[in-house]
Formats: sequence, C-alpha cells, structure tokens
Amino acid sequence: MAKKNDARNIILALDTSVSHCSVSLLQDEVLLAEKSNLMQKGQSEKLFAFIQCIFSEANLTLKDVKAIGVGVGPGNFTGLRIGISAAKGLAMALKIKVFGVNRFETLIETNQPTLALVATTEKSFYTQFFINKKPIKPPTESTRSEILKKNYLPNTIISGDSAIQIAKKLNLQHGANNSTPKSEKIGLIAQRHLENGGPNPAPLYIKGPDAKLPKEPIPLILGSNVQ
Amino acid sequence: MAKKNDARNIILALDTSVSHCSVSLLQDEVLLAEKSNLMQKGQSEKLFAFIQCIFSEANLTLKDVKAIGVGVGPGNFTGLRIGISAAKGLAMALKIKVFGVNRFETLIETNQPTLALVATTEKSFYTQFFINKKPIKPPTESTRSEILKKNYLPNTIISGDSAIQIAKKLNLQHGANNSTPKSEKIGLIAQRHLENGGPNPAPLYIKGPDAKLPKEPIPLILGSNVQ
Repeated sequence: MAKKNDARNIILALDTSVSHCSVSLLQDEVLLAEKSNLMQKGQSEKLFAFIQCIFSEANLTLKDVKAIGVGVGPGNFTGLRIGISAAKGLAMALKIKVFGVNRFETLIETNQPTLALVATTEKSFYTQFFINKKPIKPPTESTRSEILKKNYLPNTIISGDSAIQIAKKLNLQHGANNSTPKSEKIGLIAQRHLENGGPNPAPLYIKGPDAKLPKEPIPLILGSNVQ
Repeated sequence: MAKKNDARNIILALDTSVSHCSVSLLQDEVLLAEKSNLMQKGQSEKLFAFIQCIFSEANLTLKDVKAIGVGVGPGNFTGLRIGISAAKGLAMALKIKVFGVNRFETLIETNQPTLALVATTEKSFYTQFFINKKPIKPPTESTRSEILKKNYLPNTIISGDSAIQIAKKLNLQHGANNSTPKSEKIGLIAQRHLENGGPNPAPLYIKGPDAKLPKEPIPLILGSNVQ
C-alpha cells in the first residue's frame, strides 16, 4: 500500500546565512508556506519556531519531507553554521537528503548568462558568472571598478547587490537587486538536486586577494540569560 | 506489544561550546560510547560524523534515543550555537525532549557546597555556587582576588579552571581542574532532567561588570570551499 505522501515532493528550505531567518515548504515547485523575518541576531532562537509554524500552516509534518535545502553562504559566520547544523540534525534524524545551496545560485533566474553579485563592502563584491544556470568558474572577489571594466555577452543579466546600478553602467539587464537568499529559491534548487544529485551542506568560503580567515570571537559571552 | 527499546533510557549528549567536539551515548547512567576531540575549528563539520560513529559503536540508531542533552555554554559564540541547533534539529525530527546543560552544572560532582569556576581570562572567572547540586544564585563574573577574599563553608569543593591552585590558597578541597564540559556529564544531567524536567537549550549569557556583547564577525568569509 502506498504511503500517504509517497507521490509528494515536499522540500523544507531554510536560510540563516545573512541577517534574517527564512524558512519555506515547497511541493513540486509550489510554495506551500513561508516565514521570513529580518533579524540582526537571535536566529538560533527563532529558527525552530519558524519551522514549526510553516508545518502547521501547511498542515504537514516533518515526516512528509523528502529533502532539505539550506543556505551555505557566503554570509554570517555564526548564522550559516546555525542553519547547516539545524538542517543536518533534521535530515539525519529523518534519514533524508540535505543539500547546500549558495547565495550565487539563488540569484540565477534564467539560462541567460548571469553575473551574480554578493557585496562584501560598498566597493567590493564576490562574483560568479553562470551560463545555462551552471557556474563557469568558482566565485571570486572583485572591486566595483574591476566589474565595470570587464566585457560581457550582450544578453548578460546582472543579479544581486547593486545589480540595478551596475547593470545601468554596463548597459545590461538586471535581475534581483539584492543578494539576500530567498528560502523559496533554496527549496527550488534543492528539489533539482533531489532529482539530479547535489552537494552536501558545507560553509562556502571564497578566496579573495587579501584573504584572511575571520577570527572567531573570544569565549567571553556576556549579557543576561536568554530563553 | 512493547517496543524493543521502551525500557531503555538512551541519552545522546553533545557539546561544541568550547574548543572541542564531544558526543556521548548513555543508557541508565552507563556510558555506552563516547567520541571527543579537541579542535579549534571545524566542529560543524565533525559533529554529525561523531554522532554517527558513536551510534554505530553502540549498535543503536537515533530512534532508540529518549532525550538529548546539549552544552549551552558559557563558551564559544558560534560553537555553542552549532551544538544547540544540531540538538534541536535532531530532537524536533525525533519528537523527543532536548535539555540545555551549562558548564557550571557539569562541574558539580557531589552534594557538598561547590564553587564552579569557568575562566574568562587568566585573572577573571565566571563563578557559580552550588549546594546539594542546586545553584544558590545565577552565575556571576569575579576576579581571582575577589574569589580568594570570600569566605566559604569548610567542606566547600572548588571545581573548574584553576581549581587546584585556588583550592590550595583557600585551604579547601578541589574537584575537576578545568571546565571543559564532558558530554558524558551532560548526558547524566539530561537523564536527571528527563525524570524531573529541565530547561530548553538556550545559549547562556552572563552579565559581567564591564559587559559588552561580542560583535559577530562581518559577513566576509574568505578561504577555499571546504566540503
């Protein structure tokens, strides 16, 4: 006898890699429920409440989930590790696949050549170029003026942080105008990975010209006990 | 019909709140398997492999687990959030309880009055005083000389960082001589919580006299992609 949800491709997607907490439930590329909030901190406290909330809204349980997608950055050092740990914990207990999805991938909408931009400072970006939704090279770090000096195919789309401004200067089309990863998009990519295979979640690091690994804060944790 | 493990109190305990990754499986206060390694970073990558390892060693599966205990600090900002997220993810999917256990609690061995010490710098400590395994007040920050100036009950045990030195100066007994949380101890405390109730896991913050919240590193994450 077929189980209730055997035919249903339910995907749970989550992202805490930047200053937000975003969770989504999708079924066969349709968004069933989503909860996203901007937050500078406290993602660790909100994430599981958000997950409970979307399952209750969609009238589903964790046992219905076929695969999990999680944002792996580049992003906030602690935040993306919170998301990856939560996703791996859920997936391990549910015995389902979990895929890592990076911010560049979430910026690609079409098969057209696309330059994905993730700002690191006002004048510096991590960039990755895609054709047919496939990355051409690993992501790299470039300044705004380096980006503006390069030549692009005429049908290139600029997507991500400062996309409108940069596309205008290059006389090209633009897609999304910021790089905050949408969990819905992470879910759609995870669904593709479920069909064709995809990467395990691991934090995405990018080698920059002046690369230094960020130091973790010292063990001092001060404040008041937060439940 | 009774299920295979209904009578078994299997506890999974994990700690990544300091520079190590430590996981344990316990059954009715007996340690079944443990894996602990010191590591400055990379806990996020090792934690789930360690968990798989101890389950395989104990010939058990996640479905056998009755409750999870997780170290909540005080400790490394990112590390303790990795542990809490993983524990909450596992517990949510397994529909079991998850308890937070702090470093002070793991330093208490007996019902005797105990002063638990967690070093923040060479001369400063977070301290908490216990009688009959119960904390008398919330933890606080004290300098070494403040600790040495106070009066203690004659049967007080000093436990944690620099315990031997401080106990000697105070002419008191000492317990553990460092405060690195043992996951076995976290499991024992979680088992007690399973019987009597206990706190949800949340990062432990302590208000110090010059308290400043540590700033999270900026979103720059540099290096090479690590799987």
